[in-house]
Amino acid sequence: MATSSETPETRDDGVVQALISALGDKVLTAAEDLEPLSHDRSHHGWELPQAAVRATSTEDVATAVRICHEHQTPVVPRGSGTGLEGGANTTAGSICIDVSGMRQVVDIAADDMYATAEAGVLKSELNAAVEPHGLQFAAGPAIDPSIGGMASTSASGTTAVRYGTLKENVLALTVVLADGSVIRTGSTTKKTSAGYDLTHLFVGSEGTLGIITEVTVNLHPLPACTAVGVWSLPDLETAAQLVVAALRASLPLTRVELLDAPTIRALKEYNGYTAKPADTIIVEFTGNEAETPVHYAQFAQLARSFNAEEFSSTTEPEEVRGTWQARADVLPASQHLVPNAKVLPTDVCVPISRLPECILETKKDLETTDLIAPIAGHVGDGNFHLAILLPPGDEQAYAQAKQINERLVDRALAMGGTCTGEHGVGVGKVASMAKEHRSAVPAMLAVKQALDPLGILNPGKVLG
Amino acid sequence: MATSSETPETRDDGVVQALISALGDKVLTAAEDLEPLSHDRSHHGWELPQAAVRATSTEDVATAVRICHEHQTPVVPRGSGTGLEGGANTTAGSICIDVSGMRQVVDIAADDMYATAEAGVLKSELNAAVEPHGLQFAAGPAIDPSIGGMASTSASGTTAVRYGTLKENVLALTVVLADGSVIRTGSTTKKTSAGYDLTHLFVGSEGTLGIITEVTVNLHPLPACTAVGVWSLPDLETAAQLVVAALRASLPLTRVELLDAPTIRALKEYNGYTAKPADTIIVEFTGNEAETPVHYAQFAQLARSFNAEEFSSTTEPEEVRGTWQARADVLPASQHLVPNAKVLPTDVCVPISRLPECILETKKDLETTDLIAPIAGHVGDGNFHLAILLPPGDEQAYAQAKQINERLVDRALAMGGTCTGEHGVGVGKVASMAKEHRSAVPAMLAVKQALDPLGILNPGKVLG
Repeated sequence: MATSSETPETRDDGVVQALISALGDKVLTAAEDLEPLSHDRSHHGWELPQAAVRATSTEDVATAVRICHEHQTPVVPRGSGTGLEGGANTTAGSICIDVSGMRQVVDIAADDMYATAEAGVLKSELNAAVEPHGLQFAAGPAIDPSIGGMASTSASGTTAVRYGTLKENVLALTVVLADGSVIRTGSTTKKTSAGYDLTHLFVGSEGTLGIITEVTVNLHPLPACTAVGVWSLPDLETAAQLVVAALRASLPLTRVELLDAPTIRALKEYNGYTAKPADTIIVEFTGNEAETPVHYAQFAQLARSFNAEEFSSTTEPEEVRGTWQARADVLPASQHLVPNAKVLPTDVCVPISRLPECILETKKDLETTDLIAPIAGHVGDGNFHLAILLPPGDEQAYAQAKQINERLVDRALAMGGTCTGEHGVGVGKVASMAKEHRSAVPAMLAVKQALDPLGILNPGKVLG
Repeated sequence: MATSSETPETRDDGVVQALISALGDKVLTAAEDLEPLSHDRSHHGWELPQAAVRATSTEDVATAVRICHEHQTPVVPRGSGTGLEGGANTTAGSICIDVSGMRQVVDIAADDMYATAEAGVLKSELNAAVEPHGLQFAAGPAIDPSIGGMASTSASGTTAVRYGTLKENVLALTVVLADGSVIRTGSTTKKTSAGYDLTHLFVGSEGTLGIITEVTVNLHPLPACTAVGVWSLPDLETAAQLVVAALRASLPLTRVELLDAPTIRALKEYNGYTAKPADTIIVEFTGNEAETPVHYAQFAQLARSFNAEEFSSTTEPEEVRGTWQARADVLPASQHLVPNAKVLPTDVCVPISRLPECILETKKDLETTDLIAPIAGHVGDGNFHLAILLPPGDEQAYAQAKQINERLVDRALAMGGTCTGEHGVGVGKVASMAKEHRSAVPAMLAVKQALDPLGILNPGKVLG
């Protein structure tokens, strides 16, 4: 309850009582219930909220926001909690609005290739629902986040080189605004020129302009055939040049992931992975059974002209899964190097032609520290991650890691890059926003002020 | 000059003198100079502005807007003037800011496949600049508008089924805000999650939130091979079903255009076109020389299973151009039916599965009038146009055409469609915005108020 001694900050303003009156046992106030709803997977700080609302409908969200608006109480929306920059971390006095109970796939329009899902629907659940129609939701990360969370952070993953990010895949949204009113943005048509694109304004706004409760997304046909290959490259520059050449030749890469030599060594130690310890790319083509092997063969010919060596290739589904397991094992293999390590992930994105330079300078910077930080990158997008390993309790390592990340952001920005390719701003990149957007920040603040004049929506996130 | 008797409304507020002081002979005030800058290609009304500024740089635009802001004078931005909904039409007392003199391609990043161009650069000019790099700007209409105008209206054309609209192709913008300040939005990277997507807020806002002065766009590789075919279909339903089946089979259609039977008849009368007078699609595949004929053959097999008949097909560049000439001749061929006719174009877009129903009901509606209105459609997007022919001076026909268009918009909205797929709102669709966006309109107005508190940016357009 609001007056529980377990709630760290109690404002006797009646907001929690009002929420309970309206929403009953969907309102949680016990600290043990609130703790798991108070933070994402990141290293960023958090405080217990006053209460959490486990919404099961847009109406629940609207009711909760309307009450918080009346009480001028901050609200922090939350999906599956898989974020990496603290975007869902709660602050003392706030109300968490948890949409993870909103799990209905509302509509599947198979012929028009779109689907509408409530915000809490997981990527895997959406895909299970559309698979019988021969369709897939192809964007977003593999970690299986909620569709609302993915839209909120403008997320992407290994398939962005082919299918784009959430920006390219969200057609329409249902959004609860700061006063509790409900709007529908966008259109289920393939295109529209009808007025301001509110859909894309909310995509990536991390709950600071409104709370997304339903998402309409593009679907793509399920491919009949998948071909993957693992290739060792002479160096990073050549890896990037090969990928640029493949994109310029219109080869329809579905994924192209970069693992650096130390990462391959870490995999070898972890699971006996036998690829040559070199800068390596894993490449995937998907399509029908006639064209996919042809596309792979065209890539292979190109790759050999860049002195790349094929370690393995396959179109057997079981072996395809096995090949991608190497990519999935990067994080556990890295953590295996430093017992019980936590991870500080970085997320810059640069124009692809600058990727080798950005990675190499970052490696040099890392050499000035004792930090271990394997690198995995979505090389087709110019986006790469360091997984900086933090020995437990090592405050110096944590401070160094944060400095490495800050210098990395500055380096990427100087190359025409962005501080976050896909993880979002949350609290972790707030300080980078002014550096990246400079004179555009006041326009962003004006939009924030227009849509959330009381500043109750996820305060402290994105623009701080 | 501002005091010229030829200027229909003279406000002695000094704005024109201030503009002349700052920008000299870039400021036009004679009626004969202003008339061609006062309207687009549409049937919508307009009045002469006080003056026009022929900007040649972002700084010129910023200077002009700052002065107009100080004088609280409306500004109407203008690109190549090819709009169809009056988005660039001026009102008495306004200042036209003409960016058609801003013709520099600022940057071509061939390996990263993007380019930055000033707002007045024509599509053909951008393509001429990037072609030596083996690249193309693939989105937008064939009429050769300016890149700023295309971005402002979120335009598209026949290639949207493959390459998307301007929304999917604009990475970053330079924008002059209502107070004359200059911002840069977006990123030249393939993806970013860094804060509010101002880029997509300005794309499609038709100069009502800011004036776009530079546009950074995605480029795509120039294809080595183009295959086109003309196919007669039993009826519209089957045409739409065939296109849906092709999209669901992942066939990479570059264009798929629908011409109805009366349009084919009009072409026959105009230029002796010999295709069967049936509902017809023109389909195009592009790519390398190995895969393009294969894709066309896969489509042909599918088309025959829908009882489609091939009228012609070719991969010879000259014949490809000839085939598309039929599509380009739709408008003159239609106008040929009604001597000296003007045209009122419609622009709804619906989910593809609803396209036949929407077209057939519209044809029935047309039969209640004497209007002649050939139909051409971007069937891969669910977007189609009536070219309603207006005999000169026939006010009744004009009134009927406007009613047909209004009922068409209502019909499309009832099918989950949009009032404008690619022409924009301008003044012509202002009344449709509330019908389409309902509760989202106040949020749009809040954004407008935030970015243009004095309401000087293109007043009367988009939201009215």
